[in-house]
This record gives sequence, structure tokens and C-alpha cells, in this order.
Amino acid sequence: MILEIAQIDIKQGAEDEFEDGVRKAAALFKRAKGCKGLELQRSIERPSRYRLLVQWETLENHTIDFRSSADFQEWRKLVGHCFTQPPAVEHTQLSVKGF
Amino acid sequence: MILEIAQIDIKQGAEDEFEDGVRKAAALFKRAKGCKGLELQRSIERPSRYRLLVQWETLENHTIDFRSSADFQEWRKLVGHCFTQPPAVEHTQLSVKGF
Repeated sequence: MILEIAQIDIKQGAEDEFEDGVRKAAALFKRAKGCKGLELQRSIERPSRYRLLVQWETLENHTIDFRSSADFQEWRKLVGHCFTQPPAVEHTQLSVKGF
Repeated sequence: MILEIAQIDIKQGAEDEFEDGVRKAAALFKRAKGCKGLELQRSIERPSRYRLLVQWETLENHTIDFRSSADFQEWRKLVGHCFTQPPAVEHTQLSVKGF
């Protein structure tokens, strides 16, 4: 299982619109091949910064299957105008499951 | 519930030692007031970069209770020498629970 961690900075005042867009987009991710979970976390220290956490079965389910899909275009249409800059995306794998 | 996201860069070659340290330290976090979960994620793009994800009931459970405890000193003793620099720590709250 792969965890996508996308750091997303939102234009001031566009936070509610962005959150609404993510709520709508959840259905796109849910039907994406290999997508197993999605949540949006909002920074306490910097409230216009978010972390979108998405679980994928494989790295390619995100980087190839999803990014080349029509639903990716739809996702960006829903929220892309709220971004101050392109999201900083990283992928991780579980190294230690504490508890 | 608060999610602590700590970005931790590890000295090259010290990754195994760091992971062992986190495994040992899990017991310290488990007994910390308000600590509800811990996992360590390792970056695929930059394998010496980790994200420690820790769930806390309140922000203060981390920033005050844990950081002022003897167990925090113990935690840093286990892993601090593996860091290239102090961790970049941010706290987030769930904004959208997709699925």
C-alpha cells in the first residue's frame, strides 16, 4: 500500500470552496483503480495549508492510471483554481506500524 | 483528534538504526497522555526522508504534555543522532473524511 501525501496551499479566502471541491471529488477517487482511502487534513499552524492523504494499492495506480484519466482532469477542474501553486506530492510506504 | 506530521530527514546510512529506534520508542508514545496512534512512513522519492504520523487527542498532549516529559528526552536519545536537522513538525485536523 502506498500513501500519497500532497501538500496543497490554498489562496486566502478559497478554503471553503476548496474543501467543498474535495468533498465532491471524493467520488472520483473512490472509483479510481486501486484507490483505497482519502482524507483531507488542514494545518493548525498554517490554516491555508492542507495535506491530502490518499491510499493507493500501487504507485502506478496514482502516477499512471489516475493521472492519465478523465477523472484527474475533473479533479483539477473542481479544485485547481484554489491552489496558490502546484501541490507538492510525495509517496510513502509504511515503515513502522507502531499502534 | 490532532494529527502530528513530522518530516524527518535521516543521515545516509542511518535509516535502519532510525527505524529500530522508532520501533523501540513506540512504547513511549503508547503510554503518553492522549496519544492514540503512531506510524512511520518512508518516502519513495527520497528514501532518507520519513514522515512520523502521530495521533493526539489534543494539541497540548503533544506540545506540552509529551514535549515536557522524560519520555520525550528518551525518544530523542533513541533517534536524535540519526537526524540531519530538527524535524519539521506540523499539526493538522481532519477537514474532509472521504472514505
